[in-house]
Parts: sequence; structure tokens; C-alpha cells
Amino acid sequence: MTSIVLFGSTGSVGVNTLRVVEAFPGRFQVAGLTAWKNHRVLEKQIRKFKPRVVAVADEQVAGQLRRRCRDLSVTIGSGVEGMVQVASMPEAQVAVSAIVGAAGLIPTLAAIHSGKQIALANKETLVMAGELVMREARARGVSIIPVDSEHSAIFQLLHGQRRQDLRRLVLTASGGPLLRLPLGRQARVTPEQALRHPNWKMGPKITIDSATLMNKGLEVIEARWLFDVEPARVDVVIHPQSLVHSLVEYQDGSMLAQLGMPDMRGPIAYALSHPERLALPIPSLDLARAKSLTFEEPNRKQFPCLGYAYDALRAGGTMPAVLNAANEEAVWAFLDRRIPFTSIPRVIRAAMKAHDVKPVYELSDVMAADRWARDRARRAMKITGQDKGVART
Amino acid sequence: MTSIVLFGSTGSVGVNTLRVVEAFPGRFQVAGLTAWKNHRVLEKQIRKFKPRVVAVADEQVAGQLRRRCRDLSVTIGSGVEGMVQVASMPEAQVAVSAIVGAAGLIPTLAAIHSGKQIALANKETLVMAGELVMREARARGVSIIPVDSEHSAIFQLLHGQRRQDLRRLVLTASGGPLLRLPLGRQARVTPEQALRHPNWKMGPKITIDSATLMNKGLEVIEARWLFDVEPARVDVVIHPQSLVHSLVEYQDGSMLAQLGMPDMRGPIAYALSHPERLALPIPSLDLARAKSLTFEEPNRKQFPCLGYAYDALRAGGTMPAVLNAANEEAVWAFLDRRIPFTSIPRVIRAAMKAHDVKPVYELSDVMAADRWARDRARRAMKITGQDKGVART
Repeated sequence: MTSIVLFGSTGSVGVNTLRVVEAFPGRFQVAGLTAWKNHRVLEKQIRKFKPRVVAVADEQVAGQLRRRCRDLSVTIGSGVEGMVQVASMPEAQVAVSAIVGAAGLIPTLAAIHSGKQIALANKETLVMAGELVMREARARGVSIIPVDSEHSAIFQLLHGQRRQDLRRLVLTASGGPLLRLPLGRQARVTPEQALRHPNWKMGPKITIDSATLMNKGLEVIEARWLFDVEPARVDVVIHPQSLVHSLVEYQDGSMLAQLGMPDMRGPIAYALSHPERLALPIPSLDLARAKSLTFEEPNRKQFPCLGYAYDALRAGGTMPAVLNAANEEAVWAFLDRRIPFTSIPRVIRAAMKAHDVKPVYELSDVMAADRWARDRARRAMKITGQDKGVART
Repeated sequence: MTSIVLFGSTGSVGVNTLRVVEAFPGRFQVAGLTAWKNHRVLEKQIRKFKPRVVAVADEQVAGQLRRRCRDLSVTIGSGVEGMVQVASMPEAQVAVSAIVGAAGLIPTLAAIHSGKQIALANKETLVMAGELVMREARARGVSIIPVDSEHSAIFQLLHGQRRQDLRRLVLTASGGPLLRLPLGRQARVTPEQALRHPNWKMGPKITIDSATLMNKGLEVIEARWLFDVEPARVDVVIHPQSLVHSLVEYQDGSMLAQLGMPDMRGPIAYALSHPERLALPIPSLDLARAKSLTFEEPNRKQFPCLGYAYDALRAGGTMPAVLNAANEEAVWAFLDRRIPFTSIPRVIRAAMKAHDVKPVYELSDVMAADRWARDRARRAMKITGQDKGVART
């Protein structure tokens, strides 16, 4: 029996994690859950999975939830303290890190410190603090197993292979909902259009990141740390069908690919049970029915964010955290209709240009860069909101 | 240093094996070579690779070769005895079995008996006597590592995975040079047309087998024994680009594929060095340049031979040997312009219908079925040659 704590239980990966847990009742149990503020869904999860400890972001929401769960013997905390309490639960062996955004970093690091294996869906953990996090994980003997489909594919394809034989990693990208939109029409894209992902049902932040290809940029950074591969050996190819989840190439010219119907339960279950593969009710991929798998080079002009991610890796230190924070602020502003779609890369580029890179010795270095970049991005967008000019330089 | 003996050194796989050996001089050496009758190429190989023992099919050719190689200290034998001498060389650890057709079976079995690891390109060994050969190999602690691209792909994709998690194998087939030829025009196909394989440069027998899809049928039988998988879990999909060499599906819905530029050195080198991968000068597969990988169901009406292979597996015992022998006779007759292309499946079907299946206890059971089927096929074709009727029933 594997006992797990799950950070971000009401999000897309969180809900799918609980579907996997539910399908294998003799195999997994839930010790702790955390969520942001969706207390209705969280309450249902508490009643079904009976965690011992739960945390939400906000103390007011925690209070509400405590009243609604009076009949249950569950401890409900809030804020960073509550999250860290769940992350440190001694009875759990595995932490599923499924919070979206920078908020996932602290509970994930706390779980590493308490010696838990990490099933990592929160890419920001490695984007912001990859070197730091991997160093901590090595020091504690903790494995970090990817949950997103691309890195899970690569993790599956590296299993049993000799690392010194590796030539390169190839991350596939669907290209998102705007792949065929002419560059000139990007400025008028509405949140509704950008949220219409062709293949995957995901949360709003990551769906917008798919539309800008920043999602792939963040994944390049994640892959660099997760698999300890220099950035020049991480390639990206557009594959609109999202059936090939990623590839690995070896020095004998052999490429291995992982394919399957898009279903997050696959990577989640693999992260929890590898190298065993659970009998999941995911249908076989019928290649003859799929007919054609297509590939193309990403258009760097249309999707500048991908290049910014490589730039941030090259700059090193605090720059990836700045890239991530500025992007996060810009995406939420776009979703709130405060900036146009085309301003997302502009806000990021302006923050990166203004940033004075510092080395990362500890978490506070990352958090300072994160705060600085958010502040910088917000100010740029405020000015943009007034005269629609400055952030476009 | 791995010392190898190579059966069929002047054929397509043989020549590529020697290219791999040549590229890694500190790693491989050639102890013995066998060839059919191409003494010119063989002499060059002897001078370059300096084997201690060599054998050719025919004593007259052996005599010629002995005269030409008077200045070298090489022992040159002939016939089955010569082949078995090479197969039994004590200094070699690996036998590369690259003879085309039924003639590959006896030296391969001899190499297994002498305890050598087998790099197997000769599919007839497993088609004719799969159960027997695998039993012998297990008894001697001998591994049989596939060399053809499809089975090498599957072998690579099973490495490091739990066999009990396997859902199915998917062999890819290019569909050969006649894939888009309407059924009604098959009767007039010339050997030249059928030999024009779109992707792979191979010997004539295997190229015709690609055109009838019998090659894939033989591979289904080979996969059944090599990987110990029941036939219902071996699928075939047409993939005209020959870039995905085969796939494996696991019970979590995850499919793994092996891809690469079509180059036999890849599978040959993997068979000789696995799980290590040698740094081969095979270029990376550029997916964006390949653009599209397409897949379709095989048309069983257009390619009846594929179905016959599954039928032969179902019938068991001596039937796969009959399928193979009748096919071999029919293909050579077609290449000699003695029968039309469309008679190939008819000759096979007629032999299978007339065959009284017997269990296989030892090699002589297989050889008897092989002789019976060749005789039956030849007689049918002779009659066909006269009145163009009987073999078409």
C-alpha cells in the first residue's frame, strides 16, 4: 500500500490522480490533500478518500470547510503552514505535486525535505529552482518522477537505457489552439479562443501557455534539470495530434517514442507505480485510425516565448524564475482581459531585459527574483493598461 | 573483444555486419565466415577480416577459393559440414545468422548447440522450427537477439520493461512496392516491378516477400516465438515510410515505438552490443523533415499471404515450415518468370490445404515437411506451367 499526499487535489491533475487512486483501492491511500479554494470539490474528496490532514490556501476557506466537515476526523489547516504540514506527514511515501504555478514550489521542497518521493506535475518547481531542487533531492535520496505527459514519456524511454548513449531529447508540442492562426491576427485573440485546446483538457493557465508555446519552453527548462541534459540537446517539434508524447534519440541513430491516447491517468499512474505499469482502462491507440502523425518545426517568430525559455536557461541563475513569474502575471492579466494576447511575450521580454541575473544559493534568491519579476511585470502592464505603449517596446 | 562467426557474409545483412565490425576494430573480430557462392566478394572479405575458417555451399567453389587464397592461412570448407565447422568454432562467442531462406536453419542450430549467442537475421530458423529452436536455446542458456529491424525494435522496446505488463506487439510493414497497385493489376507484375522496394535495399527473396506481405507474415511467426507471445497479440499495421520500425503496447495504454532512418547497421550493432548502443554514423531522423508518418490497416484481400501466416501459426506443428517452403519455391519461380505474381499465394495455399499437419519433435520432422512442401509446390507449378490452371484453384 502506497500512502500519498496530493498538493492541488481539485485541479486537473489532482482530480485524475484521485481517479487512479480510486481505481486501485488496495494499492494507494490518501494521507493528505491540499487545494486552493474550491472547498465544494475538496469536501467531496475528503468524504471519499478520508485524508487525515488537509490544507487550503486561505484561512477563511479553511474555517468554512471545518464547519462542513465537523462530522469527520480530519485536521484542516491553511496557508503555507498548512501546506507544509501536509507535505511533512510521516505516514506518506509519495507526494504528488499538482499545484499550478509558483505556489507549488514550497510544498514540493517541504516534501523533499521530509524524504518523500515526488510525482511532479508542477513544472514551476524545476523552472524556478531546478538546480536547487535537484541538489536537495539528491542529498535526501529522493527521486523526482515527472507526471506531465512529455517528461513522463522521456522518463519511460530512458528507463533501462544507458545514459551515456543518449544523443538528444525531443519534446513534442501540440502547437496549441492558435497554431494555424496568422501572426497578424494574434493581437485580437480572446481568452475563449486561446482556451480552446485541440487535444488536452487542462487548467486555464497551462492552456494559455500552450497557446504561446511557453508551456513547451517551461518544459525544456524542466527537462534540462530533471534529466540532467544540457539545453542544446533538448529539441522541440510540433506534433498537432498529441499522440506521440515525446522522443529520445540514442547515439546509434535509434529513436524511441512514447505514444498513447491523451489521458493524464497514464503518466500519473506510471509515476506512482513505475517500473510496473498498472492495467488502466485507457483504450489502445489505433494507429490505422489515427492515420497520420505529423511533425513540423516550431515557428519561432510566431511563438517567441519558446526562444525566451532557451535564453533564460543560457542566462542561468535567477533568470528562469523571472521568465516564469513574468509569464504567470501576463497570462492571468490576459485571462482577465487586461492585456492583449500579443503582450504576453512582450511583458516577459521586458522583465528579462531589465533583470540583473544573480546566482541561486537558496530558496530566498529564487523568491526574491520571483517577486521582483511580478512587480516589474505588473507595473509594465499597468502602464500598458493606461497608454497601451510601454510594454510593446 | 567479441569474436563472431557470420553465416551469409556476402548478402545484404552480412555486408552490413562487416561494416559494423570494421567501424569498431577494437571491439569485434571475425573468426569465421560462410557464403553461398559469391567467391569474389568472399575473397575480399577474407583478405580484410582474416577469418580462421570459411565455408561455401559448393565444393567446387571452395576449391576455386582455396587456390585464390593460397597465400593466406585460412581453412576453407564446403557444404553443411563446412557450415557446421564454422558454427562450432570455439573461439567465437556470437554467431550472426544472415543466410536467407531455409538454408540458415542448420548452421544456426549448430551454433546454438555450441553455446553461441545468436544474432538472428535468418527468420526461417524461427518460422520453420520456432518451438524447437527456442527450446534448444533455453536449454543451452543461449540468447537469440533479433537483427531484422522490426524485431530489433520490439527487442529494444521490451528491454527494461516487465513482460507481464505487455498488451500487444505491433509490427509495421512498408506495404512494399505494390501497396498502391489495384488488385486487378497484380497478375501482370514483373520481377523488376516487385523488386523496386521503396525504402529498404535488401536481397531479392525478401524484397518479393515484402511485395506479397509474406515477409510480415513470417515476421509474425518469428515474433510469436522470439518474444513468447500468442499470435492474437501480434498485430500488423502498414506504415509506408518505414521510419517507425515497430511498436509495443503495455496495459496502461502506453505505446513505445522505435524509429530511425532505415539502416541495417542499427539493428545489427544493437544485436552485437546491447544493451550498450554504439556511436554509429547513422544520421538523426528529422521528424519535421519527414513531415508525416502514416498508418493503415493491411488489405487482407490484396495480400492474402499475411493471413496464411496466422493460419499456419494456428495450425501449428509442421504447418509454418510448409508455408515457408512453398513460399520460397514460389518466389524463386516468380523471379525466374515461371509463374505470375498472383500465383505465389495460390501455390502456398494449395500446399497448406494438402498438408497433413504433424507435431515437431525434432529437426527431421521440420526438414521432412520442408521437403514435402517444396515437392508439392514444384509439382503444382509444373502443372501450372503447362496448363495455367491447377494452382489457381
